[in-house]
Amino acid sequence: MATKITEFEKPKLNNPIFIEGLPGVGNVGRIAAGYLTEELKTKKFAELYSSHFMPFVLLHQSSAVHVLKNELYYYKAKEKGQRDLIILIGDSQSVDPEGHYEIVEVLLDYLEKLGVKDLITLAGLSVGQPTESPKIIGAVSDPDVIEKYKKYGIDFEGGSKVGTIVGAAGLLLGLGRVRGMKGICLLGETVGFPIIPDPKSAEIMLKLLAKILNVKINTEKLQKKVKEMEDFIKKVEDVQRKTMAGIMRPPEKPEEKKEKLSYIG
Amino acid sequence: MATKITEFEKPKLNNPIFIEGLPGVGNVGRIAAGYLTEELKTKKFAELYSSHFMPFVLLHQSSAVHVLKNELYYYKAKEKGQRDLIILIGDSQSVDPEGHYEIVEVLLDYLEKLGVKDLITLAGLSVGQPTESPKIIGAVSDPDVIEKYKKYGIDFEGGSKVGTIVGAAGLLLGLGRVRGMKGICLLGETVGFPIIPDPKSAEIMLKLLAKILNVKINTEKLQKKVKEMEDFIKKVEDVQRKTMAGIMRPPEKPEEKKEKLSYIG
Amino acid sequence: MATKITEFEKPKLNNPIFIEGLPGVGNVGRIAAGYLTEELKTKKFAELYSSHFMPFVLLHQSSAVHVLKNELYYYKAKEKGQRDLIILIGDSQSVDPEGHYEIVEVLLDYLEKLGVKDLITLAGLSVGQPTESPKIIGAVSDPDVIEKYKKYGIDFEGGSKVGTIVGAAGLLLGLGRVRGMKGICLLGETVGFPIIPDPKSAEIMLKLLAKILNVKINTEKLQKKVKEMEDFIKKVEDVQRKTMAGIMRPPEKPEEKKEKLSYIG
Amino acid sequence: MATKITEFEKPKLNNPIFIEGLPGVGNVGRIAAGYLTEELKTKKFAELYSSHFMPFVLLHQSSAVHVLKNELYYYKAKEKGQRDLIILIGDSQSVDPEGHYEIVEVLLDYLEKLGVKDLITLAGLSVGQPTESPKIIGAVSDPDVIEKYKKYGIDFEGGSKVGTIVGAAGLLLGLGRVRGMKGICLLGETVGFPIIPDPKSAEIMLKLLAKILNVKINTEKLQKKVKEMEDFIKKVEDVQRKTMAGIMRPPEKPEEKKEKLSYIG
Repeated sequence: MATKITEFEKPKLNNPIFIEGLPGVGNVGRIAAGYLTEELKTKKFAELYSSHFMPFVLLHQSSAVHVLKNELYYYKAKEKGQRDLIILIGDSQSVDPEGHYEIVEVLLDYLEKLGVKDLITLAGLSVGQPTESPKIIGAVSDPDVIEKYKKYGIDFEGGSKVGTIVGAAGLLLGLGRVRGMKGICLLGETVGFPIIPDPKSAEIMLKLLAKILNVKINTEKLQKKVKEMEDFIKKVEDVQRKTMAGIMRPPEKPEEKKEKLSYIG
Repeated sequence: MATKITEFEKPKLNNPIFIEGLPGVGNVGRIAAGYLTEELKTKKFAELYSSHFMPFVLLHQSSAVHVLKNELYYYKAKEKGQRDLIILIGDSQSVDPEGHYEIVEVLLDYLEKLGVKDLITLAGLSVGQPTESPKIIGAVSDPDVIEKYKKYGIDFEGGSKVGTIVGAAGLLLGLGRVRGMKGICLLGETVGFPIIPDPKSAEIMLKLLAKILNVKINTEKLQKKVKEMEDFIKKVEDVQRKTMAGIMRPPEKPEEKKEKLSYIG
Repeated sequence: MATKITEFEKPKLNNPIFIEGLPGVGNVGRIAAGYLTEELKTKKFAELYSSHFMPFVLLHQSSAVHVLKNELYYYKAKEKGQRDLIILIGDSQSVDPEGHYEIVEVLLDYLEKLGVKDLITLAGLSVGQPTESPKIIGAVSDPDVIEKYKKYGIDFEGGSKVGTIVGAAGLLLGLGRVRGMKGICLLGETVGFPIIPDPKSAEIMLKLLAKILNVKINTEKLQKKVKEMEDFIKKVEDVQRKTMAGIMRPPEKPEEKKEKLSYIG
Repeated sequence: MATKITEFEKPKLNNPIFIEGLPGVGNVGRIAAGYLTEELKTKKFAELYSSHFMPFVLLHQSSAVHVLKNELYYYKAKEKGQRDLIILIGDSQSVDPEGHYEIVEVLLDYLEKLGVKDLITLAGLSVGQPTESPKIIGAVSDPDVIEKYKKYGIDFEGGSKVGTIVGAAGLLLGLGRVRGMKGICLLGETVGFPIIPDPKSAEIMLKLLAKILNVKINTEKLQKKVKEMEDFIKKVEDVQRKTMAGIMRPPEKPEEKKEKLSYIG
């Protein structure tokens, strides 16, 4: 099946900004984008399924199954100084290297049709130890994008510290640029444990996003939301690890040469 | 070749229910669906081949080769209270993560054309130790499906116990739902050894299916059938493990740096 | 690029038999088919390239490069009792499980166009220890094929001994059958070391083929040919193992948690 | 997305020679081709992106992201005895075996349209120990190409020493040949550490190229360029290794049998 987008509604948007927050280190982007989606009362209009996600379903409390997916929400500007938004959140990124490219290209094809020219991607930056006040570091598609975001206190000297951005957050900027889109990746400093969400870094990210997007976000319920999310994320990671292990595990006793029985090539 | 369905006959079916029973933990679904296929005197009408199965053939006693495949059988309702059935059984599921998605999508495309709207998938649920009386746990595509199956004594409180359903049994429900199909996955509790079939759990599953489908099934020959099946399954698993091992095995002495001979990149 | 066939000449053949001899255990099929190709003064008419072969070229003595490929030769019947032949030989089989299916399907599509209805595939059967007089064991696409080949002294009781046939030799029969082709796989007993060619088993195979095809083959030069081939095969196997090792090798010290430098997800 | 070429300009070239210099052992080809590109004041006209490169972006000092890519430059002949050139350089080769074939086929399709009939590919030949004066060894698509390049002091007796050429440098010749292109692979002897660039071997390669192409190249700035390049290459290699490790790493404690919680197949 590769990767496909199922659309429920064709939203009419005016020069929308795209915001991505998928799982990653500290789940900083995922928490921030997910919370934004709820706080702004956005509407889901499309879902993305991919054979590059793990091949299982999760069970909700209600005994209903849940296929891994990414989701697209939209927000129509309500006040002056705001812009229409498209927000991408999801359960998973690709589990194989090639899939990252495929998913990002399917997304960019779709976003192009929706008139997207500006991208904001969210990620965590593992710094290896707890920080008192995590900073937000910026990476851009083009140097001139820095000018636009300079006033928000983003650290643009992180190039040497960062090195690389793995997955959708990086590829959306890099491959979006080939299509003439411009964007920024906001990287929230975090300890860097892959599974454990970092609500502190996510809160700082959220407050920055509120300023950039000119929206009001009440971060009071964030702690509670993160707790809920934590269980779900652990479940996904857990099975992913086990399934991978099953695939990668060598045979118990590969004493093939001693065996008398036949193996034909 | 990816995945393809070869059709022998185009059956005319009236609002058929689809039942899936492929290999998995304890082979509970496979045994139950396979036995159902024979007991109901169903007719094979299509076969599915996939490059996501292992690339070998097995040899029957007759010296004839057997490519790994899945098979589709149909049953025409004979009595009041019965419905037309399509049953899927097979030798193998995908051996790589992506293949599960591909095979399930090829199946759903085909089932959609045959007018399928209801799905029943069968699986084993590994509980880690022998149980006196294994239960059947239910997972559904949509919460309202529970209502329909509540009267059969299925355990719908298993959500926390289950966690995930790996492979076709889960994806058929999850991706079928995107197409408007509704369904249930019946999970038979079993010790959880992957290769060894669990006839006890399969028998309980069969009796439940007989009630749901309103058909009569004599489970007397089940023990004998399971014994026959066991040898075949062991053979498939065995070669699969060995072939995988061959692919994954590191070289015997990778002392590349010490070698004088040339390797060019 | 997947898999593609480059055709030099469109041969006009009358109900040709297809004979496959690719590398495998003991290289029994490869030696026999390769020698047959030379002895019968067949003509090469097509080549098959595939991204499922290893991504390197080999160097001939002449300093000219050699891409891994399979080759198709044809032979026009010259005497009564003979039939037109298509012979497939080659440097390599697929190095990944999926590729075996793809290559076999591309071949069968092509053979179907050339009017092929009968298949003979050649393989080695690893018996784990040297045999005084290796036997040829037969596996068939359909039980009724046994009748046709019974008179040649092939062992058709090998089903229990054989178990499985991995790769093209098995899949050609199994998937050819789905297209209405009939065939036999001839398995020459051999010690079972993958790299070392077994000329004894190949000679017995050749003599059997000569009888079946009603052609005369002088096996005198076989020892010399096998020696030449041995170096080439070793070279291919060697790099294949090393390249695989490079891909599969874990990093030297994955102490990711202790590192201070950043890795972003 | 597979592999795609984005073209900025459609250059009009007269029977151009194609020169390839991608990363590899000692980065001999990459350094030589990269330096040639700058010295000849060539113009970039196309970029190649592929899902067979690693799925991350690198950060430049300017905080701008950099997707892994290959780049195509052209040079118009300025003096008598020169020919138009197309030069391919890049950050990466395919990280999986299949990708090498795909990328090379996409390139050859494109080069065919640009009228390319002659290929020069550059690679390093690992000799395992430092050499006083590294030689350049030649491998050709066809034996008659040797005649053309004999006068430049290339070693054409290296066949036995070389064995194989892995990746684009080899496949471009081997698969180009199937399309009627002719070419040579120049292999610069180097110690053979994959990451560390070998400027000495690259300089000898550059001087040879200058003679063949009849262009003037000042190699004075080579040392400085190599130093700059070294940091970038190390960064790419580093993340590639870590990302691969993350994918390949087995689970920490696969005590699946002891677990009470459920895993369903």
